[in-house]
Amino acid sequence: MKLATLRDGSRDGILIVVRKDGNGFTKATGIAKTMQLALDTWDESAPKLLALAADLEASRAVSEPLDVRHLHSPLPRAYEWVDGSAYIHHIVLVRKARGAEPPETLMTDPLVYQGGSGVFLGPTEDIPLVDESWGLDFEAEVCVVLGDTPQGTKKEDAHKYIRLFMLANDITLRNLIPPELAKGFGFFQSKPATAFSPFAVTPDELGDALRDGRVHLRLRSTLNGTLAGDPEAGPEMHFSFHDLIAHLARTRSYTAGTIVGSGTVSNVDSARGVSCLAERRTRETLEGGKPVTPFMKPNDRIEIEMLNAQGASIFGRIAQKVVARS
Amino acid sequence: MKLATLRDGSRDGILIVVRKDGNGFTKATGIAKTMQLALDTWDESAPKLLALAADLEASRAVSEPLDVRHLHSPLPRAYEWVDGSAYIHHIVLVRKARGAEPPETLMTDPLVYQGGSGVFLGPTEDIPLVDESWGLDFEAEVCVVLGDTPQGTKKEDAHKYIRLFMLANDITLRNLIPPELAKGFGFFQSKPATAFSPFAVTPDELGDALRDGRVHLRLRSTLNGTLAGDPEAGPEMHFSFHDLIAHLARTRSYTAGTIVGSGTVSNVDSARGVSCLAERRTRETLEGGKPVTPFMKPNDRIEIEMLNAQGASIFGRIAQKVVARS
Repeated sequence: MKLATLRDGSRDGILIVVRKDGNGFTKATGIAKTMQLALDTWDESAPKLLALAADLEASRAVSEPLDVRHLHSPLPRAYEWVDGSAYIHHIVLVRKARGAEPPETLMTDPLVYQGGSGVFLGPTEDIPLVDESWGLDFEAEVCVVLGDTPQGTKKEDAHKYIRLFMLANDITLRNLIPPELAKGFGFFQSKPATAFSPFAVTPDELGDALRDGRVHLRLRSTLNGTLAGDPEAGPEMHFSFHDLIAHLARTRSYTAGTIVGSGTVSNVDSARGVSCLAERRTRETLEGGKPVTPFMKPNDRIEIEMLNAQGASIFGRIAQKVVARS
Repeated sequence: MKLATLRDGSRDGILIVVRKDGNGFTKATGIAKTMQLALDTWDESAPKLLALAADLEASRAVSEPLDVRHLHSPLPRAYEWVDGSAYIHHIVLVRKARGAEPPETLMTDPLVYQGGSGVFLGPTEDIPLVDESWGLDFEAEVCVVLGDTPQGTKKEDAHKYIRLFMLANDITLRNLIPPELAKGFGFFQSKPATAFSPFAVTPDELGDALRDGRVHLRLRSTLNGTLAGDPEAGPEMHFSFHDLIAHLARTRSYTAGTIVGSGTVSNVDSARGVSCLAERRTRETLEGGKPVTPFMKPNDRIEIEMLNAQGASIFGRIAQKVVARS
């Protein structure tokens, strides 16, 4: 099933179930008022939500027309947002861009960072930009939303704790990264509010494309109406979501609603394009000596979407515009 | 006023108002069920909570006896936990311990890291330790809880967004830090669940001790019944909470309930002792060539407390024991 959060003026919005075609919805507030509450009570709420989704699909529940502009991110705020960097090719390219070496443990020890999770952008919400020199970039990713996940969870058991899948635009301020990472404590100012896809979907919506903790479909990013990239999200995800979850759970546990990201989806084959501008700029530098593509500017538009084998949008479309902000 | 969260079997517990002597409480669920909800609705809830606190103090509200073992951390889970490292002496000593240089911008650009915030330990909850070789350490800190804080908040306005103060034990796995920071993305596995003080208090509870965004009182840490340190939290906090908030707000905004930590409280004067074992071990190494004090082991007990000028405990006492866990 597809779930989403409708803006209603409250902080956390209200939970809705969305039709498989993405065009209609029914409120699920009788089961759980918010997405977080549904996740907090998943064992009880999930069967009821599934039944409601079946009713909606069969027209036994009233379907209201869905306007994605009224949606917030599925979790407007979350208790944790942990982002991996599981596509090795992205790490290698982006570190090359800033003259940094990949870590020695690149292939054996997942890279993850703790992101800010108190204020997310909605899937069609403008990206505010105070200073163009910060180097605004998009990063297209696949994410999972966890249920309560105990410390010590092993890779083999990790699938049990994945409740939902989403897409993310992990917005990054590239030019703030080098001085920040030089301080040794990781990203902070360089990672402003992230946006997520309109819909969060249960694993069954991915069908055969979900294998070994990876989503074997292409992730399409479109910049100002032109395809920037459509890399395969599956084969080159060196650390699967199961690997990432086991890594996270080594020294602590996680509450329901924790979001875990794949990192920027990236393929070695340059014909597949890019899921962020930093990679394109690095490729340009390697080929021509300097980057040609500028970072994002006001009025630039980014769209991120994933289609299933039948060509239908699984998560709805992240569609954001950059706006100048003083 | 002093607020706290009573465990009631639910995830987020219930909000209580605590008597100034820390020995009694009254439930505040008629005003807001949880601490997060009180913070989400602070403009409406705070005056009502203050009135209830006055009633409790004047015995107009029924006071139930308080057993701190029944308390969770004031926010059992939070939307963000951002920890600074505002005591320069701590940074210098701890980096010396692991053979790393302090950042060049040490005195001008605050160091902060994004901590995990989905699962906190309660103030008297055991600290689970899977592997002694991880090098378990305590870190005694002062924290603030923010209200909704807009992007671009300046230092001069930061005080408006501080709702509550707390203490923290920012538990750290020292021996996991060097390989983790070498990867470049900051702390992750090296920072397991943090614990907070029993009470979160409004700024007025600090009286004259709160000046310039700093708490001018000593923070006492007691290890296995022996005072480990009682450094002054005020004068050597190089970056005040106002500085930290302005730093955080440069590129994003924060939701109500965001927790911001001071970093380990540390004084240059060695007579004031330490607020973590890493500092003591560094001092031992500088004096005698090697560290003598081991990191924490099962059955070790750590207590963290701050007394006001009259000798009364402001936040209640963090009192945790390390337990082996498989």
